[in-house]
Amino acid sequence: MTTKIAYLGIGIMGRGMVGNLLKAGHAVMVWNRTPERCAPLVEKGATQADSVAAAVADAEVIMYCLSDDAAVEDLVFGDGDLISAVKAGQIVVDMTTIHPDTTRKEAAAYAEKGVRFLDAPVFGSKNEAANGGLWIVVGGERALYDEVLPILELLSETTHYMGETAKGTSMKLVGNLVVASQLEALGEAMAMATKAGLDPVDVLGVLHVTDFKSPIFDGVGAALIERDFSTHFALKLMLKDANLIARFAQDLNVPIPASAATREVIKAAVNQGWGEENASAFIKHLENQAGVIVKK
Amino acid sequence: MTTKIAYLGIGIMGRGMVGNLLKAGHAVMVWNRTPERCAPLVEKGATQADSVAAAVADAEVIMYCLSDDAAVEDLVFGDGDLISAVKAGQIVVDMTTIHPDTTRKEAAAYAEKGVRFLDAPVFGSKNEAANGGLWIVVGGERALYDEVLPILELLSETTHYMGETAKGTSMKLVGNLVVASQLEALGEAMAMATKAGLDPVDVLGVLHVTDFKSPIFDGVGAALIERDFSTHFALKLMLKDANLIARFAQDLNVPIPASAATREVIKAAVNQGWGEENASAFIKHLENQAGVIVKK
Amino acid sequence: MTTKIAYLGIGIMGRGMVGNLLKAGHAVMVWNRTPERCAPLVEKGATQADSVAAAVADAEVIMYCLSDDAAVEDLVFGDGDLISAVKAGQIVVDMTTIHPDTTRKEAAAYAEKGVRFLDAPVFGSKNEAANGGLWIVVGGERALYDEVLPILELLSETTHYMGETAKGTSMKLVGNLVVASQLEALGEAMAMATKAGLDPVDVLGVLHVTDFKSPIFDGVGAALIERDFSTHFALKLMLKDANLIARFAQDLNVPIPASAATREVIKAAVNQGWGEENASAFIKHLENQAGVIVKK
Amino acid sequence: MTTKIAYLGIGIMGRGMVGNLLKAGHAVMVWNRTPERCAPLVEKGATQADSVAAAVADAEVIMYCLSDDAAVEDLVFGDGDLISAVKAGQIVVDMTTIHPDTTRKEAAAYAEKGVRFLDAPVFGSKNEAANGGLWIVVGGERALYDEVLPILELLSETTHYMGETAKGTSMKLVGNLVVASQLEALGEAMAMATKAGLDPVDVLGVLHVTDFKSPIFDGVGAALIERDFSTHFALKLMLKDANLIARFAQDLNVPIPASAATREVIKAAVNQGWGEENASAFIKHLENQAGVIVKK
Repeated sequence: MTTKIAYLGIGIMGRGMVGNLLKAGHAVMVWNRTPERCAPLVEKGATQADSVAAAVADAEVIMYCLSDDAAVEDLVFGDGDLISAVKAGQIVVDMTTIHPDTTRKEAAAYAEKGVRFLDAPVFGSKNEAANGGLWIVVGGERALYDEVLPILELLSETTHYMGETAKGTSMKLVGNLVVASQLEALGEAMAMATKAGLDPVDVLGVLHVTDFKSPIFDGVGAALIERDFSTHFALKLMLKDANLIARFAQDLNVPIPASAATREVIKAAVNQGWGEENASAFIKHLENQAGVIVKK
Repeated sequence: MTTKIAYLGIGIMGRGMVGNLLKAGHAVMVWNRTPERCAPLVEKGATQADSVAAAVADAEVIMYCLSDDAAVEDLVFGDGDLISAVKAGQIVVDMTTIHPDTTRKEAAAYAEKGVRFLDAPVFGSKNEAANGGLWIVVGGERALYDEVLPILELLSETTHYMGETAKGTSMKLVGNLVVASQLEALGEAMAMATKAGLDPVDVLGVLHVTDFKSPIFDGVGAALIERDFSTHFALKLMLKDANLIARFAQDLNVPIPASAATREVIKAAVNQGWGEENASAFIKHLENQAGVIVKK
Repeated sequence: MTTKIAYLGIGIMGRGMVGNLLKAGHAVMVWNRTPERCAPLVEKGATQADSVAAAVADAEVIMYCLSDDAAVEDLVFGDGDLISAVKAGQIVVDMTTIHPDTTRKEAAAYAEKGVRFLDAPVFGSKNEAANGGLWIVVGGERALYDEVLPILELLSETTHYMGETAKGTSMKLVGNLVVASQLEALGEAMAMATKAGLDPVDVLGVLHVTDFKSPIFDGVGAALIERDFSTHFALKLMLKDANLIARFAQDLNVPIPASAATREVIKAAVNQGWGEENASAFIKHLENQAGVIVKK
Repeated sequence: MTTKIAYLGIGIMGRGMVGNLLKAGHAVMVWNRTPERCAPLVEKGATQADSVAAAVADAEVIMYCLSDDAAVEDLVFGDGDLISAVKAGQIVVDMTTIHPDTTRKEAAAYAEKGVRFLDAPVFGSKNEAANGGLWIVVGGERALYDEVLPILELLSETTHYMGETAKGTSMKLVGNLVVASQLEALGEAMAMATKAGLDPVDVLGVLHVTDFKSPIFDGVGAALIERDFSTHFALKLMLKDANLIARFAQDLNVPIPASAATREVIKAAVNQGWGEENASAFIKHLENQAGVIVKK
């Protein structure tokens, strides 16, 4: 069954996700502030709208996955004025990683207009978006979740219902805490290992098999060996997430001592000018602090 | 081909490992300070020696996996006086997690007596030892490694040659840094999640599938839900390891800010009286700090 | 020369400050949400207003020193609606410890109405307010600072011009970072000292004379010995400040690793239920973590 | 009354202290591994010995203030073989900052030979040593302390009896924790202040007067403004102390989260190559991490 979907904002994530929606036969109308970025999707069958209002006018489901809270605020309540364009009966799915308070603000505004809303942020980056292999965590009404699930499943390896509104974004921040912890752990481990004269490839071989292994060690580890910091998920966005996690932990008054230490490292790495590189680039700051000399 | 093996010190780890050596048909002579602990292994076919000297007199390979540096010092150079009992041509395999300096001290003493030596500490605890599913990281001469490998493979899922003497224990400490980081991350994540009103089971469901998943989250997470802190690897040993990691990072002068924060949490947890519980019990301190009320 | 001053909000700080303004012969009109708290000041010669508008109608200088950003927002833009009550030519002096962004928001709103504004937060608490011994750090126009200085000097031991608007609150947060660091240092030092068997009184004797001494060690140290955690500055306000410092460091993207660690300790201490006690109560959490048994 | 004093090891500290002993009329015999460094003291009236044994042969009191535990071990039990040279009735005063375990080891060895011993480490560096303005914290027998006090008072502004053997070095490590915390706090504060556009001189002016002021902020702050990192107390020695503090906190199992974070910063600063500069140079690492551009 074809659904009319408006997808707003076409970046790394949007490009992948819309591709999969089109592949499944859905009618996708795309809009992006910089219109040229829509071209590859139009080639694949998307229709391009020249305004937010035009994009959503006829949509059953409206989706977006933006860079941060400010971008969402701007799209919904600011320049984009999406809140004026939506109408009763439509469904909005916000896939952005934002603070749960922003989620609740959106949900309340949409509810006033009779629009149903899910927060459905995603784990995974460029490759997972392209392959339909994201992991999606969802907050909102259970019945709405069930209704939208067939679409989310086109994008994801697994989809998880976490509870009412803002439980998706809450889960996302909790998960991102784990991601940052693992990158920090990998960075500290590799700095020590290198300075101890271990072969980084051998170390990654061990991290590949033990019961504390994680796919992230394989991916980031390989890139580290190759000194490949090309961007799948930008370090500046990881800093944004670290700041969101810190704010969420503040709201909940939960001490997170190791994650707090990690945030300071990420800050420092961005100050070295690596914000546009891949998130894994923050390991370079740990190397520098350790006085590790990297040959490659 | 049957090898004559002396296995010294029968604790949680020894019990499992000797069982697998016997199953493979090797002739194992066991010794333990408290002799009664050898009984179950004698039933399975081990021979019990009443002294270290008697245990190793006839052995081709001598193995031990003790609790810490002090225990190794005591066995080799102290009360156990293993160093006087060994003779040229024998092979010693120390599987204890110790500081690389202690490893080097052992290796040098054995070398003087013509004894060949491997440091071969293991990842995994009670269950992996019993199932022959440990992960072993080895330092020493490559040729000796190749010679001993068939025995190590009886105990392990994978065995890894890391380089010359003390590279095994170096890798072990680097790996344990990652283990501690994973537990800390899980603890911080679960405290936040619980206080944010997420269902812990759902959170673990997400951590089970994403690309930052790890088997350790499944195991420890399930125990956390069950409030099961029965000991596979005691928290007091994790503190010992955290202290070893800190010392190793000091020797190498490598800053490890998040791991340093984690060590302080583990210290605090031991001060709460949980040293004899499982290592995962340190998460209880994170819960307490967060003001999380656990129902079960 | 008598100045007509409106002082809004009468807490621990206001009580002390208004006392000193009255002593100097100024005409002070006071207002507080809970009117009864004004009584002791009325006895000393203050006039009580029954609304914010009434309090400021005739004032040359309007002052307030509230608990946090929310209280300022509420007084100026919310329920208090001070912004509607002020008129061109009046001077507003906000002595609250708030985020510089809130300062700038206030300043801009006042400027639109022709009202001149200084941010002038204060170091010191109950005793210093009562004794006219505060240390005041001021942002705003230099000429306005010079004009208001005679009044500020009634309240302070020293007054410091830091630069344009929000430089006062910026300095205040920087200073509070140092305060929190010193309490943390004292707490860590005393926990170690006690567990090492040193006499806490002797330790404080040393901290009283060296070149790293600080008056704060004397005051808090004595209270610690006496187990006196009666409130001069509430721990919950110190947590508020720690959170403000963290946010300011985030805005500036400055890594503050030790202060970040300290914030997590303060969070934990508040979760133990000590938020209404004196700020020094957070040292109790360090004691507990250390397993220090305090006799008194 | 003239005392025959042997002073072993002439560095920054020894030069100052011996000067004050001579000024008071004591007979001081000096020895240093590199003999030339004794020359300025010989000019002032010291006698130079060409061996440790010769230096102490006739001494009533033997003093030393070395760089670290290894140097003490070497002097007493190693190359220096002081332990063989001392004889019953002599008094040894070790003023080095070392781990309490090393203190206890010395004390036990001296006791066996009938030599009385005080641990008497000092706060203060180059200038305080020269001016007789050190702060000395002493462990050992009270009666011996009273006996030696007149000599210690020549060197110190205040002298403090802390309790039995090793209580002096215990206090010293506790105090050094506070010193490191103060420098870290100053560094974090100045990095934030600078990036917030505050004038560093103004900030130091505030830190000079409040109740959280400290002489160390004046001294280090002024040097920071001048970008003067000439050595009074080398950063590499501060790292040594940070490592000693960490080890002492480990022995006592006391969590010191902020100090743990600070140690990692000091490590990183030494890896930048600043180990021979003054301890305050570690603030440069905080500046770099913050992306602060320092003009001077």
